[in-house]
Amino acid sequence: MALKVALLGCGVVGSEVVRLLDEQSSELAARTGTPLEIGGVAVRRLGRARGTGVPPELFTTDAMSLVTRDDIDLVVEVIGGIEPARSLILAAIKAGKSVVTANKALLAEDGATIHTAAREAGVDVYYEASVAGAIPLLRPLRDSLAGDRVHRVLGIVNGTTNYILDRMDGLGAGFTESLEEAQSLGYAEADPTADVEGFDAAAKAAILARLAFHTEVTAADVHREGITEVSAGDIASAKAMGCVVKLLAICQRSADDASIGVRVHPVMLPREHPLATVGEAYNAVFVEAESAGRLMFYGAGAGGAPTASAILGDLVAVARNRLANTSVAEGEEDSALPVHPMGETITSYHVALDVADRPGVLAGVAEVFAGNGVSIKNVRQEGLGGDAQLVLVSHPAPDAALSRTVTQLRARDDMVRAVASVMRVETFSDIR
Amino acid sequence: MALKVALLGCGVVGSEVVRLLDEQSSELAARTGTPLEIGGVAVRRLGRARGTGVPPELFTTDAMSLVTRDDIDLVVEVIGGIEPARSLILAAIKAGKSVVTANKALLAEDGATIHTAAREAGVDVYYEASVAGAIPLLRPLRDSLAGDRVHRVLGIVNGTTNYILDRMDGLGAGFTESLEEAQSLGYAEADPTADVEGFDAAAKAAILARLAFHTEVTAADVHREGITEVSAGDIASAKAMGCVVKLLAICQRSADDASIGVRVHPVMLPREHPLATVGEAYNAVFVEAESAGRLMFYGAGAGGAPTASAILGDLVAVARNRLANTSVAEGEEDSALPVHPMGETITSYHVALDVADRPGVLAGVAEVFAGNGVSIKNVRQEGLGGDAQLVLVSHPAPDAALSRTVTQLRARDDMVRAVASVMRVETFSDIR
Repeated sequence: MALKVALLGCGVVGSEVVRLLDEQSSELAARTGTPLEIGGVAVRRLGRARGTGVPPELFTTDAMSLVTRDDIDLVVEVIGGIEPARSLILAAIKAGKSVVTANKALLAEDGATIHTAAREAGVDVYYEASVAGAIPLLRPLRDSLAGDRVHRVLGIVNGTTNYILDRMDGLGAGFTESLEEAQSLGYAEADPTADVEGFDAAAKAAILARLAFHTEVTAADVHREGITEVSAGDIASAKAMGCVVKLLAICQRSADDASIGVRVHPVMLPREHPLATVGEAYNAVFVEAESAGRLMFYGAGAGGAPTASAILGDLVAVARNRLANTSVAEGEEDSALPVHPMGETITSYHVALDVADRPGVLAGVAEVFAGNGVSIKNVRQEGLGGDAQLVLVSHPAPDAALSRTVTQLRARDDMVRAVASVMRVETFSDIR
Repeated sequence: MALKVALLGCGVVGSEVVRLLDEQSSELAARTGTPLEIGGVAVRRLGRARGTGVPPELFTTDAMSLVTRDDIDLVVEVIGGIEPARSLILAAIKAGKSVVTANKALLAEDGATIHTAAREAGVDVYYEASVAGAIPLLRPLRDSLAGDRVHRVLGIVNGTTNYILDRMDGLGAGFTESLEEAQSLGYAEADPTADVEGFDAAAKAAILARLAFHTEVTAADVHREGITEVSAGDIASAKAMGCVVKLLAICQRSADDASIGVRVHPVMLPREHPLATVGEAYNAVFVEAESAGRLMFYGAGAGGAPTASAILGDLVAVARNRLANTSVAEGEEDSALPVHPMGETITSYHVALDVADRPGVLAGVAEVFAGNGVSIKNVRQEGLGGDAQLVLVSHPAPDAALSRTVTQLRARDDMVRAVASVMRVETFSDIR
């Protein structure tokens, strides 16, 4: 007996799902144990029906009736956004359907509601496609590392910003110019806010942190800075240090294991770090775990076919569970670690200052660092006279102390002409 | 009610498993849904009991009685090798226990017997630790890519040989010297045969091919060449081409989809390939799938803690399945693609020839290629006079035709003084 799939949304990803369900039907049936069949496709306007190969009578604009229909076993949601996706998913769960979704925004905002509903109804909610597209990442984090302790996750989880930063690094181009190129090539949208301001990456960071640390995290818990202020000068400063600039989602356990920090911001990363070589619009996630050590997952982070691949993998899993009358409960978050504010996160800063080249300036700058309890790891002076630049890298310190240091340096116009570049630096942690 | 685990073997990996089961017991219980408890540890000699923290009365030399004991739910096998591991695993399965194993040799030689027995008994056999240590790889291949079609898998799956080749590349050192260094650092064993002759990688290739292509593959099906003949000259030749030399396990679908090729041999790989940057004893596996595109999984391939991390991840999964009264059937290999012989595999060769520097030699060499139906992609001459070297890279062709070409060139002492270097070249396939 075939399992019937309701598909919500039939855009770029949805139509790929339709295509693969058709083209790979015999392989999917073999791997699942039974055929998977499209029972209906909900779209906003019926014009969408054309060209997908789905019989026109399967299309409907009444998504709510579709997801609660008795003969539907599994629901695939690829419409995105909070509503109506949330109401539809909750109705499907309540009606006993398992759900596969790519909806990062919803999971990051209200994942707890979804997971609790699924647990109570005894159905599955799988969402591999919501972070890093086709890269098998969420289930490895949840399942394969279930017996390990994750210390830190560093992820390039937004392809648009990685493409832009890669162009800035490779060509010495500025942000605006690189964004325009990304837009003309279809890597960035006409309104690039969600990508370049880090909202997209922040949603993914919340999902990753929840899985890595088994604790509830929402997008609102994530400290977020985008890449719009990254300048060609920052990139050049990074190069001079043997680093590249990447927009990273960072989820990290505090040293005392009592809390976690979750943040998205540009980072200077040493070129020998495996994430540093991730170019173009690729995604990659670097995981540091106590026993497993350093792991990296790399691949395409977006696109119709890669996203559909992740969805079909999930679909096979929930279908198998359905046949076996079981489900994978999630959402009983056992560790309940609080998320600490950004100011308490331990980071390192790279600071480049345009300074007056006269005796006493280095001493004065060093005093500002010391006054905030921040020690300096290395310092070098570049240029001479009016063009002198002082480049300092701090030892790890609470972000608030570092941020206060920079504010005070900006105010010291007796020695600092301008703060030319400020960026956090990440390196390897002690994990092998 | 706790689930009881029988541990077979208590060496480097086994004692890490014991340590983690103890240290992480509350997290493991939360993720599993019930505590995991050691019910017994089988060792060859009871002296092993010391220092593991396991109560001495739990140790036994009677592994067979342990795995069939009524109160045991799950069996972890880390003794390795074919026997007695196979008999113990089969007895455990028959007695209704689920099994977690790191035994690549057994799975590559006789996986079908194990999987069939597990299917019939309705129990799980999980084996993430058998390939690429801590890297979550096998379950992603099996589960996350279940809805996709894998075209090719390229893997650095042996840390010892990667360390040796990395040293040869970095220092220009020879094979013997690099092997000795690896031995002195503990990266290579006193008898390095299994690693340097490719036996270890071949077993892993068989396991990867089976999961990637859903067909039965054993170690005997794998074409195997080690790295003992890789010379400093080969490495230099690779460098001149912008390549590195890596020992790769390659599992590839034929162009007509009718068969697969599975092989382990040294390869020249372009430096811009993500696998080229994998240094030291790290492992990484690069997967090309139809919809997902290019994926890479990177991490520690061996060591007690990384291997134990993979085992615990599996243990949580089989324990959850046990609690849910389900199991993941494997071994009904649906595609049954035959493995074609190496001669039919499509490869490219890099050939460096010491030649007499006189008119007509290039024409003569080119004729030998053409006579075997092999076309030349590029050719360059290095040096002059007595030291002239002709370096040719072929277009893809059946390996048998390429191999025959080299044999005929060796026999042509009228123009070829010596075949200085022969190595296969791999690049990206057409998959994005």
